[in-house]
Amino acid sequence: MRAVDVIMKKRDGGELSRDEIAAIVNGYVSGEVPEYQVSAWLMAVFFRGMSFRETADLTDLMLRSGSRMDLSGIAGPFVDKHSTGGVGDKVSLILAPIAAACGVRVPMMSGRALGHTGGTLDKLESIPGYTTRLDEARFREYIERDGFAMTGQTDAIVPADKRLYSLRDVTATVESVPLITASILSKKVAEGAEALVFDVKSGPGAFMKTVDDAERLASSLVRTGQAMGKRIVGVITDMTEPLGDKVGNFLEVEESIDCLEGRGPADLMEVTYRLAAWMLVAAGNDAAGNGAAGVAQDVEAATRLCEKAVASGKALELFMRNVRTQGGDVDRMMKMRGSFRSRHVRELRAPAAGYVRSIDAYKIGLAGVYLGVGRNKTSDPVAPDVGFVFERRKGAAVAKGDLVATVYGKDEASLDAAWPLVAEALSVGPEAPAASPLVIKEITAL
Amino acid sequence: MRAVDVIMKKRDGGELSRDEIAAIVNGYVSGEVPEYQVSAWLMAVFFRGMSFRETADLTDLMLRSGSRMDLSGIAGPFVDKHSTGGVGDKVSLILAPIAAACGVRVPMMSGRALGHTGGTLDKLESIPGYTTRLDEARFREYIERDGFAMTGQTDAIVPADKRLYSLRDVTATVESVPLITASILSKKVAEGAEALVFDVKSGPGAFMKTVDDAERLASSLVRTGQAMGKRIVGVITDMTEPLGDKVGNFLEVEESIDCLEGRGPADLMEVTYRLAAWMLVAAGNDAAGNGAAGVAQDVEAATRLCEKAVASGKALELFMRNVRTQGGDVDRMMKMRGSFRSRHVRELRAPAAGYVRSIDAYKIGLAGVYLGVGRNKTSDPVAPDVGFVFERRKGAAVAKGDLVATVYGKDEASLDAAWPLVAEALSVGPEAPAASPLVIKEITAL
Repeated sequence: MRAVDVIMKKRDGGELSRDEIAAIVNGYVSGEVPEYQVSAWLMAVFFRGMSFRETADLTDLMLRSGSRMDLSGIAGPFVDKHSTGGVGDKVSLILAPIAAACGVRVPMMSGRALGHTGGTLDKLESIPGYTTRLDEARFREYIERDGFAMTGQTDAIVPADKRLYSLRDVTATVESVPLITASILSKKVAEGAEALVFDVKSGPGAFMKTVDDAERLASSLVRTGQAMGKRIVGVITDMTEPLGDKVGNFLEVEESIDCLEGRGPADLMEVTYRLAAWMLVAAGNDAAGNGAAGVAQDVEAATRLCEKAVASGKALELFMRNVRTQGGDVDRMMKMRGSFRSRHVRELRAPAAGYVRSIDAYKIGLAGVYLGVGRNKTSDPVAPDVGFVFERRKGAAVAKGDLVATVYGKDEASLDAAWPLVAEALSVGPEAPAASPLVIKEITAL
Repeated sequence: MRAVDVIMKKRDGGELSRDEIAAIVNGYVSGEVPEYQVSAWLMAVFFRGMSFRETADLTDLMLRSGSRMDLSGIAGPFVDKHSTGGVGDKVSLILAPIAAACGVRVPMMSGRALGHTGGTLDKLESIPGYTTRLDEARFREYIERDGFAMTGQTDAIVPADKRLYSLRDVTATVESVPLITASILSKKVAEGAEALVFDVKSGPGAFMKTVDDAERLASSLVRTGQAMGKRIVGVITDMTEPLGDKVGNFLEVEESIDCLEGRGPADLMEVTYRLAAWMLVAAGNDAAGNGAAGVAQDVEAATRLCEKAVASGKALELFMRNVRTQGGDVDRMMKMRGSFRSRHVRELRAPAAGYVRSIDAYKIGLAGVYLGVGRNKTSDPVAPDVGFVFERRKGAAVAKGDLVATVYGKDEASLDAAWPLVAEALSVGPEAPAASPLVIKEITAL
């Protein structure tokens, strides 16, 4: 099979067979198909799309380019959550111990901050001693013992995705729903989860800027995952405002502890509980309709279980246990709480009286790159002690000069560079803004 | 400027600036932009197209990647004709001396047979001694002396096109009107013509299968050429049946001589006279509206001049002079006439009584590749003495068993391989086919 014929078929809108997709993906990995053919094919896919069947075949072929986590011998159910990325999105840190406390095993493989979005690994690594580099044996052991473990993607997992993603990044073929789907799903399936909950963020602070786009991606993830034999839930959540009151690395660890202590901000808890609850439902509905983990059959009952896991302190206990297990120094972490802040600080104050109409998550995320929260290139370092502490959020009444946020940067220059974006992010007006839902839509295949 | 941003802009339907197109084309030629970005950009252009302004910039940038023929010091007007390729299309061999006889200078740079279409260079090289490899000095000298010269594209002319075409060929991005336009036009402008006539073939035997597609290409060539300051005519001609009674290499030289002797088949002469006449008109209409070469101001008057050039023998004389000039042995050529035929021969006879409804140019062209008329790869050799002599053409009444064509192959195996296509190409039916026009549409920018 000639690669050029596969490119032409896709270019002309044809549906590719599994063998045709394999000719490109396996040929690329083996070096038989050159990058210039792969990139032309990626662009043809960008324009023509892929059926769910094609996307499932692509995902499976990418998955088979590497090894999979072997969780056999450990009692499940294994459920993970994946977010498409946002600003202030520390849900993974809170939700993993909650779901584990409810009897679900969470084999969580996370990513790093890139562009305006934060990264779970960077947040966890702001805890002194915490390591996110776990080999398979430790990952298995920790999941079995603590109910969850947090790791990065190893080189052995879906190497085809690493190469394809690098190529997509330089050929303007990132923003393709089937390619995004295969990239996300191949890694999630490789980590061994049997059910998955996707938090597809929508809005200016998200990768998908509109609800329509987010819905297309959520549908693709759910239907493709279903075609691969997984139980899947896609939850579209709003990412117009930062999630929670803190944006940063250690700042978000702090806020996660607050949440697990039952003192989390309402927006963050709403999203966290909803996603954790869907994990319980996804875990529980096995083929026979039995609660496999003895967990809830509907999302309302599941939410009550999640709330109980927080109220009882069990989720917090599991979080602390995980920090210790993965090498983190709990004592130091707790001492750093509330005080581990860069000395380069500046205050964002209300420029007029009125209401906070919006705090633009995208601008906050971009400003965060300057401050040291995130990075533009994967090789750039991040700072643990920088970011935003919001005192007032969307809808709050403010007098002129009221403190809206304290902003910490890695140095003064970073604050200078970030400030225009920070100032622009805040919008104050005479009328209170209309409330908008955080959980916009849910698509399930259970 | 980052190549990825240019790809993204085109991908999203933007109109690229000259600098943005230069970033890709010049970056590719200099090695700064890797092939995988160029191919993704080509695919984006395939889907999004280009404005005439963008196409003109692309053409000009490609043109500037190499050297141009310098025809300064020779009196013009310089006009060339280019065909998009067909079967039995020996128009260049007849038209160049006709136009030259009428006072136009024809700097003709031609191509070789590829796929089902024939190549002017291969036909000329079937004349013993004839060389189509002229350096610039000789090309100039011959044009000045004989009024025209026939050469191949040198490596110095538009090197960007060679590289881009090779890349397009393996990335399924050949069939793009702006990319085809830039490829054709950059080479034609580089050869020094100030006016150009394009024969855009349309039909099964052509690259453009439908009149709509041919019209899109013709419009693009005319409007882009106009944007580059050239006088341009695009003539859409039918390529459903082979053009003329002979298809081959030396067979087409023979038929060209027949035409110049005033004994050419009607279809071939109609197309040749029309295209040659437009060359005269394109040459004659300078900015002030004066006949620059003292030639005709309208296509009807120009046609009469062309007919006179044949009737007077002047065009034939220039043809013979060119053969001698370019090293050809006129005596041997004239002795070979009517007898230089491969001994591997087979007859195509009417399978039933009725009318020849069609002889499929595409199938004849494909069969010709087996016989040795053409080639599948540019490195394959062709045979001079093979091809088709048609005794009956579309519309002819036939009895069962009547000879329709004599077919010459390089060996018996080639005839065996070609025969199914040859037999399929002939369609005989009880009713006479409707006549269809050969010259379908003309687009001018003079």
